[in-house]
Amino acid sequence: MRERGYAGTGLKAISTRAGAPFGSMYHFFPDGTAQLAAAALRRSADGYAERAATALIEGGDDPVVAVGFAFDRAAEVLVDTEYVDACPIATVALEVASSHDELRALTAEIFEGWRAPHAASFVAAGADAARARPLSTLFLAALEGGFLLCRSAQDPEPLRVLGRQVAAAVRAELTGASRADPPPTRDVEGPTTGPAGA
Amino acid sequence: MRERGYAGTGLKAISTRAGAPFGSMYHFFPDGTAQLAAAALRRSADGYAERAATALIEGGDDPVVAVGFAFDRAAEVLVDTEYVDACPIATVALEVASSHDELRALTAEIFEGWRAPHAASFVAAGADAARARPLSTLFLAALEGGFLLCRSAQDPEPLRVLGRQVAAAVRAELTGASRADPPPTRDVEGPTTGPAGA
Repeated sequence: MRERGYAGTGLKAISTRAGAPFGSMYHFFPDGTAQLAAAALRRSADGYAERAATALIEGGDDPVVAVGFAFDRAAEVLVDTEYVDACPIATVALEVASSHDELRALTAEIFEGWRAPHAASFVAAGADAARARPLSTLFLAALEGGFLLCRSAQDPEPLRVLGRQVAAAVRAELTGASRADPPPTRDVEGPTTGPAGA
Repeated sequence: MRERGYAGTGLKAISTRAGAPFGSMYHFFPDGTAQLAAAALRRSADGYAERAATALIEGGDDPVVAVGFAFDRAAEVLVDTEYVDACPIATVALEVASSHDELRALTAEIFEGWRAPHAASFVAAGADAARARPLSTLFLAALEGGFLLCRSAQDPEPLRVLGRQVAAAVRAELTGASRADPPPTRDVEGPTTGPAGA
């Protein structure tokens, strides 16, 4: 599913690759592909969170260094796996965003679960609490956008470049450099509805 | 295809929605879905580039302001279209990255075509040429990652937050603030192979 997406992954293909009889798929997943997809998403999300946590820990106590390390590590894994091993959620998340609300909500829950510990680690390193969450948004969005650009171009460079830029943003926050331009407070933790008319 | 991805969009579904006889699909696209996908990607990429250019022009001469404006506008369009109208390329790009090399290469070409004018506009505003391209990578990756997070959560906030952060990175570059931490030169324009062992 990470390779081909949700619509491109039938129960038949899965049972074939698993060497399992086709009938067993409906035994274990009586509600079909969506149920299997949800189980696969949850499982790979946990594995991914674990790997990300390991990369950040290997990166050391300084979140600026750890962030750069995590992006470099992600780039390295992409190269080692011929650009297959990227985010296990993104492909499915884009596919189902407008077509399958239950799976969409699950992907949102997973992304949220990934952001929270990042924000906490930035706060632990001294970042302003109100700015730690936007930083975790930048971290995750740049990583996801980087996976997209790297996989598309078969080139690890975008993730490496992005790692340095996200690290610079974290450093700016920790040293107070970015405080010269605080975002409007109402938007940082405010309601998530659009602007007037949106 | 933007809604459901490549694998989820059959010729039958397209001909039905278009009100065209199914046979006409093979008349116009004798090589089938991949050929139609390539045509659709090229066409929507052009339309998207035009819209992005318009948003940047409406945003004004100052690239810092224009960048924030472009992200806010993207968030607004998402809300207005119930989170359907995001990047027309990303869903397909992730799906085909490991399964259809011709379409993959086309998506890479499209992303590259989007980055170049951004980099040029940053240089025109006074950014160091060697740093303009990384900034354009950040712009595009944050936009794409933002679309993913916004569509998944049905919430425009990530794109708004990211717009302010990318704008801050552009400002830091234009005011020279980020020069305190130059990236290793060999990585900025250097070879795109992985580190030793990758």
